[in-house]
Amino acid sequence: MTYLMKLKPMESSAQSDKLPHLSESPHFHSIKNPAFRRIGLMGRARKRGVITTIHEIGQRINEMGLSLYVDSETATLPDLELEKLNQLQIVKRSLLGEICDLVIVVGGDGSILHAAQALARYRVPVLGVNRGRLGFLTDVNPDEVGVKLQQVLMGDYQLDQRFLLMMEIQENHEIIHQDMALNDVVLHAGKSVHMIDFQLKIDGLDVYRQHSDGLIVATPTGSTAYALSGGGPIIHPSLDAICLVPMHPHTLSSRPIVVSDKSEIMIRIHKDNRTQPMVSADGKPSIALEQHHRLFIRKHPDKLTLLHPPGFDFYEACRTKLNWNVHAEEFALDGEEDL
Amino acid sequence: MTYLMKLKPMESSAQSDKLPHLSESPHFHSIKNPAFRRIGLMGRARKRGVITTIHEIGQRINEMGLSLYVDSETATLPDLELEKLNQLQIVKRSLLGEICDLVIVVGGDGSILHAAQALARYRVPVLGVNRGRLGFLTDVNPDEVGVKLQQVLMGDYQLDQRFLLMMEIQENHEIIHQDMALNDVVLHAGKSVHMIDFQLKIDGLDVYRQHSDGLIVATPTGSTAYALSGGGPIIHPSLDAICLVPMHPHTLSSRPIVVSDKSEIMIRIHKDNRTQPMVSADGKPSIALEQHHRLFIRKHPDKLTLLHPPGFDFYEACRTKLNWNVHAEEFALDGEEDL
Amino acid sequence: MTYLMKLKPMESSAQSDKLPHLSESPHFHSIKNPAFRRIGLMGRARKRGVITTIHEIGQRINEMGLSLYVDSETATLPDLELEKLNQLQIVKRSLLGEICDLVIVVGGDGSILHAAQALARYRVPVLGVNRGRLGFLTDVNPDEVGVKLQQVLMGDYQLDQRFLLMMEIQENHEIIHQDMALNDVVLHAGKSVHMIDFQLKIDGLDVYRQHSDGLIVATPTGSTAYALSGGGPIIHPSLDAICLVPMHPHTLSSRPIVVSDKSEIMIRIHKDNRTQPMVSADGKPSIALEQHHRLFIRKHPDKLTLLHPPGFDFYEACRTKLNWNVHAEEFALDGEEDL
Amino acid sequence: MTYLMKLKPMESSAQSDKLPHLSESPHFHSIKNPAFRRIGLMGRARKRGVITTIHEIGQRINEMGLSLYVDSETATLPDLELEKLNQLQIVKRSLLGEICDLVIVVGGDGSILHAAQALARYRVPVLGVNRGRLGFLTDVNPDEVGVKLQQVLMGDYQLDQRFLLMMEIQENHEIIHQDMALNDVVLHAGKSVHMIDFQLKIDGLDVYRQHSDGLIVATPTGSTAYALSGGGPIIHPSLDAICLVPMHPHTLSSRPIVVSDKSEIMIRIHKDNRTQPMVSADGKPSIALEQHHRLFIRKHPDKLTLLHPPGFDFYEACRTKLNWNVHAEEFALDGEEDL
Repeated sequence: MTYLMKLKPMESSAQSDKLPHLSESPHFHSIKNPAFRRIGLMGRARKRGVITTIHEIGQRINEMGLSLYVDSETATLPDLELEKLNQLQIVKRSLLGEICDLVIVVGGDGSILHAAQALARYRVPVLGVNRGRLGFLTDVNPDEVGVKLQQVLMGDYQLDQRFLLMMEIQENHEIIHQDMALNDVVLHAGKSVHMIDFQLKIDGLDVYRQHSDGLIVATPTGSTAYALSGGGPIIHPSLDAICLVPMHPHTLSSRPIVVSDKSEIMIRIHKDNRTQPMVSADGKPSIALEQHHRLFIRKHPDKLTLLHPPGFDFYEACRTKLNWNVHAEEFALDGEEDL
Repeated sequence: MTYLMKLKPMESSAQSDKLPHLSESPHFHSIKNPAFRRIGLMGRARKRGVITTIHEIGQRINEMGLSLYVDSETATLPDLELEKLNQLQIVKRSLLGEICDLVIVVGGDGSILHAAQALARYRVPVLGVNRGRLGFLTDVNPDEVGVKLQQVLMGDYQLDQRFLLMMEIQENHEIIHQDMALNDVVLHAGKSVHMIDFQLKIDGLDVYRQHSDGLIVATPTGSTAYALSGGGPIIHPSLDAICLVPMHPHTLSSRPIVVSDKSEIMIRIHKDNRTQPMVSADGKPSIALEQHHRLFIRKHPDKLTLLHPPGFDFYEACRTKLNWNVHAEEFALDGEEDL
Repeated sequence: MTYLMKLKPMESSAQSDKLPHLSESPHFHSIKNPAFRRIGLMGRARKRGVITTIHEIGQRINEMGLSLYVDSETATLPDLELEKLNQLQIVKRSLLGEICDLVIVVGGDGSILHAAQALARYRVPVLGVNRGRLGFLTDVNPDEVGVKLQQVLMGDYQLDQRFLLMMEIQENHEIIHQDMALNDVVLHAGKSVHMIDFQLKIDGLDVYRQHSDGLIVATPTGSTAYALSGGGPIIHPSLDAICLVPMHPHTLSSRPIVVSDKSEIMIRIHKDNRTQPMVSADGKPSIALEQHHRLFIRKHPDKLTLLHPPGFDFYEACRTKLNWNVHAEEFALDGEEDL
Repeated sequence: MTYLMKLKPMESSAQSDKLPHLSESPHFHSIKNPAFRRIGLMGRARKRGVITTIHEIGQRINEMGLSLYVDSETATLPDLELEKLNQLQIVKRSLLGEICDLVIVVGGDGSILHAAQALARYRVPVLGVNRGRLGFLTDVNPDEVGVKLQQVLMGDYQLDQRFLLMMEIQENHEIIHQDMALNDVVLHAGKSVHMIDFQLKIDGLDVYRQHSDGLIVATPTGSTAYALSGGGPIIHPSLDAICLVPMHPHTLSSRPIVVSDKSEIMIRIHKDNRTQPMVSADGKPSIALEQHHRLFIRKHPDKLTLLHPPGFDFYEACRTKLNWNVHAEEFALDGEEDL
């Protein structure tokens, strides 16, 4: 697939003499020509095991003699004993993307959403280590983090570019709010059970006026998140498409619509709403959308660059995460030659 | 169908001498033995035309020489000129059900939901006159109100009993909140786009722990309202069943479940909710559901008694309201003999 | 739940002296007052393990000193060594229901559908032992068959009555074909990808004319089978309801409809069908439905009586079979007191 | 949108002297520099009005002094009086695409599917005149055919390229069957109600083994046809994507998948199918798919070039055809300034 290209491993020679004494670990040696030298490490502690995994990764990176950067938010996680790690610098989160060649994010897909916000502008590659549930973006499991990390650092990985959405609220043609989303921008009914009433335009053309609980505007990345619960299709990450999924539409013939990633989506709410419509990007705190506002959603100029260890397979992720693999043993059951 | 029984027209003779002078209208004469004598009239003014229709109905009832009762809330609607009507008494809404033999509600289905709250306990029959959109409960159109009203008042109608739901929030086995619903009780995520995490029991049995936007617990009456937008089935009003429709469930194999109207539903939220789950009955203001609360939903002892003019047909309502009838001309197109 | 009543264990004393010498098995002894004495045993061999399980059950019944009846179809299954069993009689399948107090069916849900056909008229209770995939009707697993069987035979079980559908094709008001279904009657497009065009009436009322791939008319039992794949709701087995699920309807606002089990469904195909519509009950070979035919579907006078070992729980079956239980460990995860 | 480009009107001067005497019609004059000179005309007579519309179009073309070509199949339609038309040549259907600059197809979307088969390889533009129901491809209505035709012939139109699917059945790596589809390739269960069991690969990667009624593999053009009834999303015609819609999948978490138009889809059926799976392209007669076959589906090298009169709007077609416009009057209702 074209979306999975191998990055050319970085040239590195002069700097290798800077490397400190090597770990005696039987598995982890200093790497001669590492693909990445300055490794960022981020984590959020809501899930158990995040601390353990951050420690383990930090030690691996120490052993391999690479530089380790932790952002100040991660550094203050309770129970994190950073003093056990060498070669560590604590930097502002906003600098992590600028300084590092690679950022490792420990957590669930939510942590990647969070990281994308800070890192996308620098196009620094991100490796996700899964400590959450149902991770499409964090595909390294903690128990294989050693092996996978070494593969990646030796330049053996797949590159996976994910586009982002830009949302923009305009008032009298002036931008009053801007945000970005890796998964989705969601128009919703705020705190109410009452449907909202809004108009949708795509590329300047009327699509519909809809009464519903709202609208999910999702990237392919977001197509396996909230949009999927809303009845949207699974969109392969390599496809340049945006999906609009109506939430509980009053008109029963409403359906998800998939349009080009070059399309511009515009939403305006109607004046007779009994509730205050709100907008949220990637589940961040919602912003009120007023009647005189225009909400524009279009492709963001930045992209998130995900790294996968070798063997990453989107469809396998679907099978695993969506429980398609319940009878997967049957793939082999019939003793037929491989397809 | 068993749910459509004809009420025995009320005995009425001694009282007819109380009737005032009759209208000279060529169409509306005093009815000898009216099925109903004390007619309540309610309306909400959000929709245009409600005032006009209330006036028209009031005059018809005057012409027929019947007593007319308007509740104090309706009486204060702007532009309502009650002085044009005779035989009119203004009473508290809570008394309307006690005093009247029949209450006419002008508005949309929402007005009937509203009326049900005040009237169900008295089992007084309700006739809905449609001034809203998509009315399953208000099946008399304003332009036929004269004819239909006369039919009903002469005892020519269908009776349609609709059961209600009782919702009850308990804290330490004490009831701290109670409400009733004709359509549905909805557990939802409050003001957030974050899914909620709750457990569902039916008749004391674990059903599931679910991450979703919430759960719609609907009567057959509610099955053609919000629950339908959520992917629930249409349930015939005569069926004694409750339908549970998950809203955007995280587990894709979740499906609407239909259980007996005798079932008791119990919901408890989990402690790790990032948002404050709320409950609403028939779209009324939501109540916060705390972790130590138990939400019970079961059949309410009261019922709403709807009256339909002759010829009411639930499936025709479906065809009309849900646009199944787009090619309805084709029912006849093929020149085949009737089925 | 009201649908799960305990049958009064049969009176039995005089006959117990007929019991043969007892097995020396430490677990299986002759039962003093068995709830059932004449045990039928049926199986279909498509799935592995059916033979093994039939043998095991046969031996258990021998050990308990009860009479064993095998129908002639089962008796001819390859590898079945009936000579190893005592107290065995081979009878015609059609007699099994008449002779036996209890019939054990080994296989998947399909085997129960099959058995229902032969047994329903006798109201003989049926116990399903699961050798297939996704069994809602066969809830005893082979590895627990010994314990469960003993419980049932000692009178410790739940009774679960399932109603059946009767389908009837009429031509000029004469019945030309009749069949029964435990799961569903399916109208479909025969061998074609072209949609069919038909009219649906319920209780004599027009519902719709529909272009679709067909219609699934399902019992609550069938609601977790094909109808579920078609987007129908899960209907609790205790509910007296019939569900109509349109298959790929052309009109996008078509929805599953749930009606009373007392409703009569009538389907007539239109003359301009480009394909030959067919009807099938429980997946049995399809019958052509011609334009001058009328297809009637209504509740069958017979019922299937299922037996469940103690502890049967419909919702647990849903969780297991539909993979709702993927995160079921979390039911307990939070260390909260039981609901 | 990029998919709607204006073709440069053809250069034409030397040939205009060939034009015959002009019609005296007040509305239709010979066009000085027509965008197209050799106009093909095709129709299928299943729908009423096709003949009338063919006559009218033929006369318009006569009046405008352009050459008219009718294929031999259309020419034999009953009641078609071709002798009334001038400048008419009857040619083999397979030649129509080679000879003509523009082919007008009268009928429904099915007629365009049919025409695509014969015309796509020549990339001759096709204008659809709607005589059927629910036409996404035939967007000229008969009552406006005069005006719209003149606009198109004067070079005022939108070009809309639609990609096609190639399906190929291989046996031992040899192609034994090939077909093309504008809408969809459908794998289905043949004449049975039994589910089929097959494996799906995309771009060489396992996706799933599925039990279902089959799989719809659709183009964006087909996304508003059968795939939509199957629960698939609406895909904008400009998007280079293929959609896979499972039909009544046994695994409830199966969802439509949208992949790049460059993806190669491969399907192989399993050996334990109880029914004979079949494949059909655009609803053409089905081909049996055997266990040792491989079904490949990929983008076809040819495209169908549709012409639309000015003002064509895909979303308006959705609103009209899918009944989203039921309350379209409300677009204007609120008297707000235009969006």
